[in-house]
Amino acid sequence: MNSFGRIFRVGIFGESHGCCTGVCVDGCPPGIALSESDFEDDLRRRRSGEKGTTPRREADLPRIVSGVFNGFTTGSPIVVEIANNDTAAKDYALFRDIPRPGHADFTAEKKYGGYADFRGSGHFSGRLTAGLVAAGVIAKKIIAPAAVESRILEIGGSADWKEIIERCLTERDSAGGIVECTISGAPAGWGEPFFDSVESVIAHIVYAVPAVKGIEFGAGFAAARMYGSEHNDAFEGQEGATVTNHAGGVNGGITNGNPIVFRVAVKPTSSIARPQTTANIRTGATVTLEIPGRHDACIALRIPPVLEAAAAIAIADLKMIYRAEPQKKI
Amino acid sequence: MNSFGRIFRVGIFGESHGCCTGVCVDGCPPGIALSESDFEDDLRRRRSGEKGTTPRREADLPRIVSGVFNGFTTGSPIVVEIANNDTAAKDYALFRDIPRPGHADFTAEKKYGGYADFRGSGHFSGRLTAGLVAAGVIAKKIIAPAAVESRILEIGGSADWKEIIERCLTERDSAGGIVECTISGAPAGWGEPFFDSVESVIAHIVYAVPAVKGIEFGAGFAAARMYGSEHNDAFEGQEGATVTNHAGGVNGGITNGNPIVFRVAVKPTSSIARPQTTANIRTGATVTLEIPGRHDACIALRIPPVLEAAAAIAIADLKMIYRAEPQKKI
Amino acid sequence: MNSFGRIFRVGIFGESHGCCTGVCVDGCPPGIALSESDFEDDLRRRRSGEKGTTPRREADLPRIVSGVFNGFTTGSPIVVEIANNDTAAKDYALFRDIPRPGHADFTAEKKYGGYADFRGSGHFSGRLTAGLVAAGVIAKKIIAPAAVESRILEIGGSADWKEIIERCLTERDSAGGIVECTISGAPAGWGEPFFDSVESVIAHIVYAVPAVKGIEFGAGFAAARMYGSEHNDAFEGQEGATVTNHAGGVNGGITNGNPIVFRVAVKPTSSIARPQTTANIRTGATVTLEIPGRHDACIALRIPPVLEAAAAIAIADLKMIYRAEPQKKI
Amino acid sequence: MNSFGRIFRVGIFGESHGCCTGVCVDGCPPGIALSESDFEDDLRRRRSGEKGTTPRREADLPRIVSGVFNGFTTGSPIVVEIANNDTAAKDYALFRDIPRPGHADFTAEKKYGGYADFRGSGHFSGRLTAGLVAAGVIAKKIIAPAAVESRILEIGGSADWKEIIERCLTERDSAGGIVECTISGAPAGWGEPFFDSVESVIAHIVYAVPAVKGIEFGAGFAAARMYGSEHNDAFEGQEGATVTNHAGGVNGGITNGNPIVFRVAVKPTSSIARPQTTANIRTGATVTLEIPGRHDACIALRIPPVLEAAAAIAIADLKMIYRAEPQKKI
Repeated sequence: MNSFGRIFRVGIFGESHGCCTGVCVDGCPPGIALSESDFEDDLRRRRSGEKGTTPRREADLPRIVSGVFNGFTTGSPIVVEIANNDTAAKDYALFRDIPRPGHADFTAEKKYGGYADFRGSGHFSGRLTAGLVAAGVIAKKIIAPAAVESRILEIGGSADWKEIIERCLTERDSAGGIVECTISGAPAGWGEPFFDSVESVIAHIVYAVPAVKGIEFGAGFAAARMYGSEHNDAFEGQEGATVTNHAGGVNGGITNGNPIVFRVAVKPTSSIARPQTTANIRTGATVTLEIPGRHDACIALRIPPVLEAAAAIAIADLKMIYRAEPQKKI
Repeated sequence: MNSFGRIFRVGIFGESHGCCTGVCVDGCPPGIALSESDFEDDLRRRRSGEKGTTPRREADLPRIVSGVFNGFTTGSPIVVEIANNDTAAKDYALFRDIPRPGHADFTAEKKYGGYADFRGSGHFSGRLTAGLVAAGVIAKKIIAPAAVESRILEIGGSADWKEIIERCLTERDSAGGIVECTISGAPAGWGEPFFDSVESVIAHIVYAVPAVKGIEFGAGFAAARMYGSEHNDAFEGQEGATVTNHAGGVNGGITNGNPIVFRVAVKPTSSIARPQTTANIRTGATVTLEIPGRHDACIALRIPPVLEAAAAIAIADLKMIYRAEPQKKI
Repeated sequence: MNSFGRIFRVGIFGESHGCCTGVCVDGCPPGIALSESDFEDDLRRRRSGEKGTTPRREADLPRIVSGVFNGFTTGSPIVVEIANNDTAAKDYALFRDIPRPGHADFTAEKKYGGYADFRGSGHFSGRLTAGLVAAGVIAKKIIAPAAVESRILEIGGSADWKEIIERCLTERDSAGGIVECTISGAPAGWGEPFFDSVESVIAHIVYAVPAVKGIEFGAGFAAARMYGSEHNDAFEGQEGATVTNHAGGVNGGITNGNPIVFRVAVKPTSSIARPQTTANIRTGATVTLEIPGRHDACIALRIPPVLEAAAAIAIADLKMIYRAEPQKKI
Repeated sequence: MNSFGRIFRVGIFGESHGCCTGVCVDGCPPGIALSESDFEDDLRRRRSGEKGTTPRREADLPRIVSGVFNGFTTGSPIVVEIANNDTAAKDYALFRDIPRPGHADFTAEKKYGGYADFRGSGHFSGRLTAGLVAAGVIAKKIIAPAAVESRILEIGGSADWKEIIERCLTERDSAGGIVECTISGAPAGWGEPFFDSVESVIAHIVYAVPAVKGIEFGAGFAAARMYGSEHNDAFEGQEGATVTNHAGGVNGGITNGNPIVFRVAVKPTSSIARPQTTANIRTGATVTLEIPGRHDACIALRIPPVLEAAAAIAIADLKMIYRAEPQKKI
């Protein structure tokens, strides 16, 4: 399904080369100031334009279709659409016989039996994350004063990635990267033990972001190599602050009041112009595939605002659910 | 919430020192052979008893309360309960003032305002995974002929972990580990783009397993350090088989017919007998805490069947959802 | 599925002649005083024993399996089981060839392909409402100070139904009835426009109660014969009180602060001892069926506490959802 | 929330005087022929224009925003928008002090704290049912060869309602009515016992239709006045056909293969031009309210295609869920 959340519910729609992509946000509280200009910053950050990102140029002007009146959210579903203008004609039908390695061409065919809109990867396009970013702008307002921030830790294994990108452009190749996201200011008590743990809910939506192949909280995979005596976060004082934050702000699935920290592994863009040896799945023949078109040499460069949006959406839902279950003191 | 799944829905209940833990499985198809003895193998594997696991000894005899008749599932909710017998009396109330580092004592207090059953970690106990394992036994039957298998890759950073465990027992410390899970035999086409991607759904339920702090699919975090030309999985033949499986069997959120492979980081058990410096959160004073009781020196040793159960539950749901959405050919 | 609710979620399980029926309540706030004796009154009202109700005699002693500690709800799932003791052996297999008219024998066969537990109607038995009543006891505590009350308006078309019941017992027949339910003390603002309107949510769960075939709010079907000038409820004063309550306390799907009033049509019990002409669906032959066993001559007599439970569960969920969506004033 | 369904999921959005209303349909199978002209018939039937319906004239030209490619559904979310063109400027702010009797003005204020778009009733407008009708067009294709049909049984208590409408227009009043809906061709086995009974699911969505205040299946409220011997539907033959259909095609919450029949009570339109005595809720003063503008004298006249849409959406979801749970024969 294309929706996420129990109380603050987000659904995305659209195709890369259709008229637009968009998002429907249901369950947003009324009375939040919201205008089309509020989306600009994060949509611009997602658009990037930095060296290594796609030459496709979209204005990304959001249009609020419903749910906002006199400058405030009304409590009714908010639909935001972002038009597709710079859609280049290209013969994507080729990829039905020779599916692009690492791409969703093959799986889309298997799932949708040949009916998927394959132009520019259709509904599977990273372009759909524009709607996610738009929903994130609203979610960020809901979780305030808690705030979310992402940053790239490394690209292609390097914290100084300029050279990696250059190499990708020269070699018509692509690179992956690691992005870290921190949510600060969330109080203790959000989330649930087991199935709706903070980690479960964040990981669920983060894995909806194309190209994500790993997520770890706090010490993450490094924790697997630590002793308990190193890993345990000692408390100090009366507020639950911990000396270290190996838990990434979550114990037993519930926020502990320390920053929620997670890192995400982003695979290298699968669409590369460099020739690839693969198969024609109609004939079984080995072929060499060269993918024309405009691609991101490194999609990780554009992930930070998308990750922030995903995290904010998850946290907004948990915050609203927390409100529903009042805590009673003996 | 304590439930998971859209069609095949699993809910767990119970407390470590209550009468039992259990699981309710809703949406299970009728006509699946099922008896109490079917649960034995996986419950025994979870129980372990291996060096480094808890001295708590539970028979783990499952009792089918509903949903099975004449040896077959009926289509009605299946409730399975597993009694708690070996519950040692201990003063857990101490941990309300001095919450155990790395544990859910503090967050449970914040969320439930002092009403949580804190005996043996109550509803937060790893003991709840017995119910998950029971549901997994049913899920494994649904996903057949697809099959799921887990194995420990390393404990404390070592593929040969005997020494690590010895050190933990001697030092009254604990160790983490990495466990890999493989689902083979799943056809292409299961899962959804975006919010219900295979990775999203598996990660969601896997993060419900206590002590999991990271999950990666296929090449995972290593993918972030690869070039696209290395990472892309070339196709060979007509069936969608790929030469490599860096994608871990999932493209665009949908199974591609190759094995689904993921790895999980398990943190070291947070309950350690070794003295820890931490705080009394009522007074703010720095204190030394020694945790008595029976603990796993390495919970990762017991994770494999739990991980298999989680994966099988997720995949069973995706398989059933796939059936609901028939594919039509032009 | 056998669950209901978004935040306060209720799932029932069990079979008429299995070991027990029960309920799992997830999402219940912590800190609510709860003990097994709290269930007694409503379970006794449901059991009835009045003339015209089944001679099956169950003690209906509830057992709290989880989610309660030291006399209070913990916030974890609450499982309550009610044992089946008075299960008479009888040959229900007959009904697979000659399904009882008005009963679920035929549809259960079609849905579950012969695997359903058919003893005493299995999972379709009215006995499952014991779990619903148990959940209602908890829900009533959540919605307080709002309160819910049901009463029988008529049985067999008569407000004085003693004679009707006598006739049913003599003629080995059964009668239906109309039951009214009133929720008072709910403030304005609960519920949602459209899909989760108060009427939608209440009707959803009320139609889960076996034998219900109609539900109307406020003036209900009579409203279809009124003019707008008669039907509209004029306001008086500043608090939203209305002179009449033809709307049954709900406008635009949202509570208006006046009592929520609905009426339910309960069909006559389908199991009657009187001979019935019907078909053997294996052979197609016309046959005369006499149903032995213990039945309610009028199930409507036992519906009031079940209806209260259903209403309280629905309202508890809406109350908790309302809390999640804070109202902001300009 | 503004969404409905588990597999076939429908969400509506928009406001009466915003740019458009619309619908998002998620979970639709791929490969269904669909074009904008497919929506015309049902949107025209809903628009009506018959004597007694609103003078507001909308072209109701649907625009498919996503999810359709080369004339077929793709399996991705389908968004359909219907523009609002004929929006008359009017001072709706008045109704914040003097809420219209029978309308959602008061409850919207209570729920949304003054932020709701009150122009033309905003999100509460019957205009939102245009999106529901659009989704119904898609659902009807999914449930084929089963088919759904609605007809007006009576208006203002009369099967010949011409005079009633004339009186309403002369007296500036409004009338209610009763509409019947029949789903034929659905096989036995759809739906679930208890919480997702066919009646539960249909009643849930039907009560989302503004002005509906009652729903009954089969004999409905009349069943409450029948004896079991009259009400029980005898089987004939081997296919499960019944001599009568008092059950309205549903036993134990599951379709029995006979036509599913339900009737709905539609209240008279609450917006009437005739003066009404009511209160100013800011001051508490008794006032006389005259509501200007364009209204339906009888909204029931426009309900049939909306009811068909609601029923088709519910049944489409149940059909898809049924497919997910394969029946196994011993």
